[in-house]
Amino acid sequence: MKKLINSPERLLAESLDGFAAAHSDIVVLGSGRKFIRRRELTPGKVALVSGGGSGHEPLHNGFVGYGMLDAACPGQIFTSPTPDQVIEATNAVAGEAGVLFIVKNYAGDRMNFEIAAELAQCRTATTIVDDDVAVENSSRGAGRRGVAGTLIIEKVVGAAAERGADLNDCAAIGQRVNAATRTMGVALTSCTVPAIGKPTFDLEADEMELGVGIHGEPGRKRVKLAQADSIVEELLTPILNDLPNPAPTDLLLLVNGFGGTPVSELYLTYDVARRRLERRGLRVARSLVGSFVTSLEMAGCSITVSLLDPETTDLWDHPVRTAALRW
Amino acid sequence: MKKLINSPERLLAESLDGFAAAHSDIVVLGSGRKFIRRRELTPGKVALVSGGGSGHEPLHNGFVGYGMLDAACPGQIFTSPTPDQVIEATNAVAGEAGVLFIVKNYAGDRMNFEIAAELAQCRTATTIVDDDVAVENSSRGAGRRGVAGTLIIEKVVGAAAERGADLNDCAAIGQRVNAATRTMGVALTSCTVPAIGKPTFDLEADEMELGVGIHGEPGRKRVKLAQADSIVEELLTPILNDLPNPAPTDLLLLVNGFGGTPVSELYLTYDVARRRLERRGLRVARSLVGSFVTSLEMAGCSITVSLLDPETTDLWDHPVRTAALRW
Repeated sequence: MKKLINSPERLLAESLDGFAAAHSDIVVLGSGRKFIRRRELTPGKVALVSGGGSGHEPLHNGFVGYGMLDAACPGQIFTSPTPDQVIEATNAVAGEAGVLFIVKNYAGDRMNFEIAAELAQCRTATTIVDDDVAVENSSRGAGRRGVAGTLIIEKVVGAAAERGADLNDCAAIGQRVNAATRTMGVALTSCTVPAIGKPTFDLEADEMELGVGIHGEPGRKRVKLAQADSIVEELLTPILNDLPNPAPTDLLLLVNGFGGTPVSELYLTYDVARRRLERRGLRVARSLVGSFVTSLEMAGCSITVSLLDPETTDLWDHPVRTAALRW
Repeated sequence: MKKLINSPERLLAESLDGFAAAHSDIVVLGSGRKFIRRRELTPGKVALVSGGGSGHEPLHNGFVGYGMLDAACPGQIFTSPTPDQVIEATNAVAGEAGVLFIVKNYAGDRMNFEIAAELAQCRTATTIVDDDVAVENSSRGAGRRGVAGTLIIEKVVGAAAERGADLNDCAAIGQRVNAATRTMGVALTSCTVPAIGKPTFDLEADEMELGVGIHGEPGRKRVKLAQADSIVEELLTPILNDLPNPAPTDLLLLVNGFGGTPVSELYLTYDVARRRLERRGLRVARSLVGSFVTSLEMAGCSITVSLLDPETTDLWDHPVRTAALRW
């Protein structure tokens, strides 16, 4: 295992310390390193709290700041944050407007955010993200997995909260954006969880895993490596077939690297996807390309398509000021 | 070779098309895909033109935009752009204030920018970047190599140009920042140039290359993999020994991933470096952590230290609006 670390046990703490120091203008590290929160809170606003296993950076810590999250709870690598973490984060950012939890659909995450909702001293609501079309049930819980589309929900709802939407509205917007968002990924290589020390799964030199999860969970099928044109088609077809009425409309196209994919390959993948969408009469009105929801050093990427209406577009365009996303 | 591409021959063109489409609010792709330039030029300003081999994305294309470059010329992977590319980019952005070339110190890049300077129809000056302390001469030219520090020069000079500095001033600032900037890198794995199809160099499972170049050129020594604490010390010591009078002062610390390094490891490396610098009485006044000057999918990172004076700090803080850097 080749990692730039001191030890698997110290990785998360040292990485969080570095993150908080490098972005001390935007964030503060909570006591006991249980959460990252905004340095400056906006009184009266609905607070957004998310979190999940680490190893997907910059998700979620990198999305704490103006226009997105108020706090994020980093679990150990690929491990849910504890209820204790979520409760402390919630209490640190909660105001009278309440707190919206944005939770990826994994059994551990859902359970621990539910416990926190019961024990937190404020009003809460929860938006579940399950954008991954690859599998209907995963090794990590019932129903579809929450993957790269999470950042779109965090961005759009974050903007709505800044503009004064109340807790019910924020939850409704989150649910609406999730319902309009679909993702599917492909892995060319596995990742290695530091505490385990060997690859999560094995792929032959000429194989790829279509529909892979962001923890290296199995996808739909393992097939021979193919050209980007063919891979993109394999990802886009189930996405488009699953979207509610993707008739001529504007959409947001996110090509997300899993951590070990060169930037040039992500833009190439984006180019192929964009052309194919436009050939089907769809308009790519907004774009995002980069490694935002990663799986440590896994090579591969996911494609996310999110249908845009004028309100969602306007919220997407709202200014954002976080470590990983700024405009 | 596992790559998300259609073919090595089409990689660069398809990637550039994707980049230009994804960032069409900021950039335009020049005819024949010879260069990327800003969509909106500022009349009267000194224009900054950089470029070099591709494979280091987001450098340089990702730094075209307000506050940094006016144009960038992408060569084939790890191959200098042609004089023709540089001339066309120069003519596309040149005004009466002239054009500053920012060129990494490799023989091919220097030669082709020199030819372009002779043939371009405008006043030009050139800043050579040679921030890599690892080796005094490389397989790619005489003198030190230009690596991740390049982005600091592009950012600082870019801000000066926006504020109305003339061509001589811009060149002088570039030279001054280069003289105050030192970098050294470490590779944990090689990268694979698509047209070649096999790793540029071989590293055993327990080895790393200290002082590696951004094309996978040899560094100072190949040693056993170590803990991050020890690796950071191996990088920081030659950097600090080489800096002119790094006595108590403010500095900019850049931890740059080579493409295959998880974000968490970069922040951990940053944390270790920052603590060590502070222990020596140096103050990390500005920070940047991410994969900005990459070597395709190479795992590893470089550390850059740049001494700050009030003017440089102010220019660093000036707003920037590019695909890869924004504030």
